[in-house]
Amino acid sequence: MTLQNILVVGGGTLGSQIAYQAAFHGKNVTLYDISDEALTQAASRLARLSPSYQEDLQASPAKTEATESAIRLTSDLSAAATDVDLVIESIPEIPTIKVDFYSKLAPLLPKEALIATNSSTMLPSRLADSTGRPDKFLAMHFANMIWIRNTVEIMGHARTNPAATAEIEEFTREIGMIPIVLNKEQPGYILNSLLVPFLDAAFKLWGTDVADAYTIDRVWMLATGAPRGPFAVIDVVGLRTAYEIFSQQPGDVAKAVAQKIKARTDQGYLGLETGRGFYTYPNPAYMQAGFLTALGDEKEQSTVTV
Amino acid sequence: MTLQNILVVGGGTLGSQIAYQAAFHGKNVTLYDISDEALTQAASRLARLSPSYQEDLQASPAKTEATESAIRLTSDLSAAATDVDLVIESIPEIPTIKVDFYSKLAPLLPKEALIATNSSTMLPSRLADSTGRPDKFLAMHFANMIWIRNTVEIMGHARTNPAATAEIEEFTREIGMIPIVLNKEQPGYILNSLLVPFLDAAFKLWGTDVADAYTIDRVWMLATGAPRGPFAVIDVVGLRTAYEIFSQQPGDVAKAVAQKIKARTDQGYLGLETGRGFYTYPNPAYMQAGFLTALGDEKEQSTVTV
Repeated sequence: MTLQNILVVGGGTLGSQIAYQAAFHGKNVTLYDISDEALTQAASRLARLSPSYQEDLQASPAKTEATESAIRLTSDLSAAATDVDLVIESIPEIPTIKVDFYSKLAPLLPKEALIATNSSTMLPSRLADSTGRPDKFLAMHFANMIWIRNTVEIMGHARTNPAATAEIEEFTREIGMIPIVLNKEQPGYILNSLLVPFLDAAFKLWGTDVADAYTIDRVWMLATGAPRGPFAVIDVVGLRTAYEIFSQQPGDVAKAVAQKIKARTDQGYLGLETGRGFYTYPNPAYMQAGFLTALGDEKEQSTVTV
Repeated sequence: MTLQNILVVGGGTLGSQIAYQAAFHGKNVTLYDISDEALTQAASRLARLSPSYQEDLQASPAKTEATESAIRLTSDLSAAATDVDLVIESIPEIPTIKVDFYSKLAPLLPKEALIATNSSTMLPSRLADSTGRPDKFLAMHFANMIWIRNTVEIMGHARTNPAATAEIEEFTREIGMIPIVLNKEQPGYILNSLLVPFLDAAFKLWGTDVADAYTIDRVWMLATGAPRGPFAVIDVVGLRTAYEIFSQQPGDVAKAVAQKIKARTDQGYLGLETGRGFYTYPNPAYMQAGFLTALGDEKEQSTVTV
């Protein structure tokens, strides 16, 4: 069975991107959100994606226009749920909101419809029963800017039917993305399970003044051949997210890290989103000739008073 | 002052490489070891480096021959210590052996001579007093295959004179290597402080069967643009080293990881050194077209019975 009729629930940043990506690849897409206001915002988000698809994927204006107009927007859940093959849920990360929503959605859906949650933080086993079809429920984790960062982590729970996982894997390829199938539930999936301790270690070296961010990145790049180091990755993740994590951790080192991050975020150094974080964009220092050998002796931006 | 007369202590794998690299770049190098037998082994190691410098750095046979013959080998410590500007110590990682050696060496050396330890595991503050010149003592950490992996982490302790650190930094550049200067002592320096938690996270995902090694590497490569993932790095580090670490860690997860590694090492899958570890060499799967998209559906080698 090909999953052709897709219902995306939630028109936020990722929900909009998922809807757009699926429609771009020829799926019949309905985007549901709770109010006309939310749908208006979702429509703006969809419209803002077209230039990115044109620029980054060389899509023609005709193709992006057709993609936008093919996505059906609705706040009528009964209508949205008709004839759906796959629901991809991307609503707020609050367990009771998700459970309530699934309980409302489940009876409206065709019995055979699959459901995938895009949750970053909740394991699918926690939500499975509320979907009324635990064997057809799993997690599909997209990263922001899915048209470029086109990996999807697919994670079932113990009762997910392997046939459902296989269908989702095929669907992922059909919408131009690379499926990564986990064998079992894992908080943080694979990517964040690797990234979190890696970035944590980098922040602690920096927070305790063992070395500046540029030096730490340089070591990683030289030793592993990676095109960027941990602080370049952090600029993508965003410094506010990093601050939230460290400000909630116990211990003096975490406190020192949080304070040093806050000195940056207070001055608008939020990362890629503001064009400056540990690096300034475009053309960050780590992409410049001589960065690795430090012949220009680039040092971490000292414009921030810490 | 240029550091020209170099005494390398210990003709093991790294000591030989350090002596060769310094001589190759025009330093006057003496290699000291404790016995004629040890020196004979060191001489073989030096001879085996010449083909690598020819192949990897396009050095001429005349140049490598001159390099080999320029290195003075001796087991006479008094003679070795005469007129030395810098000692680089690369002897076994046993604190008492290092302390005893420094206590014996210190009175024989010129008063102004600097001393650097290549220790991976001991902080320089622990050894400083035994050198008789704590202000002129620091750690210089080389990685195996220094002519290619040409980064040196330079780490002083609280009493190291910044002028000494600056001289070592200059010396590092003079022998064709990239200096990374730490601001303070850090167990594991920068690189291992990042690598250890990163590889630990990867091993735990694999050891608990969340995903196979190839899938984990693929996720990291796709998400970060890195040319290789954690298991490719582990093949370089060596699986026996990984086993030693996990077999000494407490907990069920570490035990599961250690057992899965042992199933590989028992069958000779030691990593790059045996041509097979998680990948087979040359031409490991992660370098093949299609690895990232898994269109060929490469899976981790299942030749190992676990």
